[in-house]
Amino acid sequence: MPETIGFLEPRQAVLDRRREILIDLADLLPEASLIGDERGLKPFETDAFLAYRRMPLAVTLPETTEQVAAILKYCSRYGIPVVPRGAGTSLSGGAIPQEDAVVVGLSKMSRILDIDLFNRTATVQAGVTNLSISEAAGADGFFYAPDPSSQLACTIGGNIGMNSGGAHCLKYGVTTNNLLGVKMVLCDGTVIELGGKALDAPGYDLIGLVCGSEGQLGIVTEATVRLIAKPEGARPVLFGFDSSEAAGSCVADIIAAGIIPVAIEFMDKPAIEICEAFAQAGYPLDVEALLIVEVEGSEAEMDATLQSIIEIARRHGVKTIKESQSALEAALIWKGRKSAFGATGRIADYICMDGTVPLSQLSHVLRRSGEIVAGYGLRVANVFHAGDGNMHPLILYDINDPEDAARAEAAGNDILKLCVEAGGCLTGEHGVGIEKRDLMRHQYSQADLDQQMAARAAFDPHWLLNPSKVFPLEGRPAT
Amino acid sequence: MPETIGFLEPRQAVLDRRREILIDLADLLPEASLIGDERGLKPFETDAFLAYRRMPLAVTLPETTEQVAAILKYCSRYGIPVVPRGAGTSLSGGAIPQEDAVVVGLSKMSRILDIDLFNRTATVQAGVTNLSISEAAGADGFFYAPDPSSQLACTIGGNIGMNSGGAHCLKYGVTTNNLLGVKMVLCDGTVIELGGKALDAPGYDLIGLVCGSEGQLGIVTEATVRLIAKPEGARPVLFGFDSSEAAGSCVADIIAAGIIPVAIEFMDKPAIEICEAFAQAGYPLDVEALLIVEVEGSEAEMDATLQSIIEIARRHGVKTIKESQSALEAALIWKGRKSAFGATGRIADYICMDGTVPLSQLSHVLRRSGEIVAGYGLRVANVFHAGDGNMHPLILYDINDPEDAARAEAAGNDILKLCVEAGGCLTGEHGVGIEKRDLMRHQYSQADLDQQMAARAAFDPHWLLNPSKVFPLEGRPAT
Repeated sequence: MPETIGFLEPRQAVLDRRREILIDLADLLPEASLIGDERGLKPFETDAFLAYRRMPLAVTLPETTEQVAAILKYCSRYGIPVVPRGAGTSLSGGAIPQEDAVVVGLSKMSRILDIDLFNRTATVQAGVTNLSISEAAGADGFFYAPDPSSQLACTIGGNIGMNSGGAHCLKYGVTTNNLLGVKMVLCDGTVIELGGKALDAPGYDLIGLVCGSEGQLGIVTEATVRLIAKPEGARPVLFGFDSSEAAGSCVADIIAAGIIPVAIEFMDKPAIEICEAFAQAGYPLDVEALLIVEVEGSEAEMDATLQSIIEIARRHGVKTIKESQSALEAALIWKGRKSAFGATGRIADYICMDGTVPLSQLSHVLRRSGEIVAGYGLRVANVFHAGDGNMHPLILYDINDPEDAARAEAAGNDILKLCVEAGGCLTGEHGVGIEKRDLMRHQYSQADLDQQMAARAAFDPHWLLNPSKVFPLEGRPAT
Repeated sequence: MPETIGFLEPRQAVLDRRREILIDLADLLPEASLIGDERGLKPFETDAFLAYRRMPLAVTLPETTEQVAAILKYCSRYGIPVVPRGAGTSLSGGAIPQEDAVVVGLSKMSRILDIDLFNRTATVQAGVTNLSISEAAGADGFFYAPDPSSQLACTIGGNIGMNSGGAHCLKYGVTTNNLLGVKMVLCDGTVIELGGKALDAPGYDLIGLVCGSEGQLGIVTEATVRLIAKPEGARPVLFGFDSSEAAGSCVADIIAAGIIPVAIEFMDKPAIEICEAFAQAGYPLDVEALLIVEVEGSEAEMDATLQSIIEIARRHGVKTIKESQSALEAALIWKGRKSAFGATGRIADYICMDGTVPLSQLSHVLRRSGEIVAGYGLRVANVFHAGDGNMHPLILYDINDPEDAARAEAAGNDILKLCVEAGGCLTGEHGVGIEKRDLMRHQYSQADLDQQMAARAAFDPHWLLNPSKVFPLEGRPAT
């Protein structure tokens, strides 16, 4: 992608003190927790967004909340920007550093502190991976619900920063619906605790505010999350349709009927072909659109729910219905879906958009966004969380052709504006990061943005935490 | 209750301008929307907390968002405190005015604007009552889940302010889990919109922050809430036990087994007797503690869930199990529970506490709080949302005996401190208001409180909105 989106100008005074800053940080951290050499810094210059690269001033990998506090206290005293980082899997550039920033990577804080079945909670350090929470609770019959495609790698700290979702969030909600408490270090090094195992802490719901704030209000070092009991059984079912519109209308009618399956995933023909070629998941290749609907519960419950869904699908002219017949088949169906981004990356460069729309607008936005991409002479594959109205058009282009890249970016922006016009949002689960920062003006009035920025300033008055992200660079308050 | 909890000193400059303020407000509002005479103001001098009374300077009853904006713009220009009010059903004094305040009552903004089944949402004005949302969506088979006992009277605006819960929140969550968007007037009259029908707005989750902020960040004038499909069937079942400890342990084991009924309500013997005398609900009178467990779904699902719960209850020596045999019986069971506070009020004065505890601590806290109240020579009735760990000890006393009242308040404070020590919270659903303001120091460190107050100041820098509530009067920042 072309560098149409800038970063804040690096602070020269910080760059000039680089050597001194590294010496000072070395006093605060174990030797293996500080990286200052170019080769060591290289892996931290971007994240899964990949479109931009910046070498940070230094990378720290603290092992304790106290070390995080010491780093933030030091950086805030000297006006040094700080960029928090989990596993670097952000798709919106949320973890991309800047030249004058100290990266605080949480990867060494990866301990599971407590699994409490009486309260159905897990308390973990922020660098714990999403999937490892479910693994730790699995033997007792519980799991952690939000399941981003990157769940093998991504950390709970990053999930909190981006309010991450996943295929199974239709029933169980996204991160904010499953987060009960955090320990967090404020910009000046103060450690605060928000929420906890018991219901509804008094005073303001700062956890709700922190979740999705993209590392700008503080650095979360520990989190308490809700565990969910594994269902008795779960069964993904494939529904093939002759058109994307029919599939989209079917989704809207399922939801309007009050049925909440665990997941309703949507794939159009390009996405089906890409994923099937990669995963041999058994997807039908003679349809224009596919829904993966997962039901769960006892056999009787699954049968009953499925029956209602099949009736609705028939009204929309469903062409093929295929139930998974074994755990292996079910796993393959999900493998195909979860590898969609990786599989697409093998055949083309792409940008992945993340808009949401009200379900009543799904068919309209699908058709219009196809026309938009075609208008730029590009191809698109759609694979997304349809039950949530959370669309992921993957716009295919050639990263080595600057004009192609510019067209892809323009098409993506047009699609996100279309989502907003249809009553939706710029992002469902990937966050704003750098990618959608300047589009925030399409979603919000200046008064709305001013209020969000005022809330930010209540935590970080000098905009030191992840400063280039979320808000347009123009129109910020003086700091 | 003795007036141990004060209000902020009224601003003399505001009191002196009372006449002029009324004339100015009359320019902004229809005649029937402004109350300035003593007789008209009288009904607004307190709320359901009842312990304190203050006559406000004026009461406004705006009919539109624009009128709310005009009032706030005027009041903020002249430094006049504003107290928002829904139906005045707050149990923590959240709507009690102060002498120098203009009350903004939302009762005239009571229209349901939109029922959208495709997106399972209702958009309503803030003065709409909780129950009327469910009534409006009922014919289509949907309802609004949070169900405070006061749901016939309380407004959605008040529910948002207090993040209200209810008996059925175990499965469906409290207000914050069911609120999708708001239109809100900021202190200076600016109107902002947060969230909406589509998933996960980008930028900060200010809705999460606003929900539960007790009217201190702005005045919500419209809300978009989630509708839930009515279950196929629902069945409350009574489980009687020989001791409160056994009932409490049973609750913890149900939850630890991963079973989430719609509701698990707890009543001890005094509460059973009070409610049965009032409602003839068919509660067993020969047990020490009663659980009302409601399961829902198809007949087969209800049977299966109930079977698992009965097995757990047997392990805890359940004495009687009684399933409701008809819709009438089911309604009576809930009538008994929901009238608990009113029925108690007929036999004694009481204060209702609202602490939460981790479920593993439930039995311990029940026993200890009984000892605390007995130590003060008083009686207690317990009736609460056990599945959520949200306790409601009703401490019985004589409001005309100042010493008795002081003992009741002391006992209540001791119980809330006990909840916090057990890892719980000061409030589950009633809010902090005036009642628990000074107890916030037991829950939070000064750093925690400072951060909450900084967030408040980002919305209302001069502390004009509901200023005497939530935070201790001492230790506030200068405004």
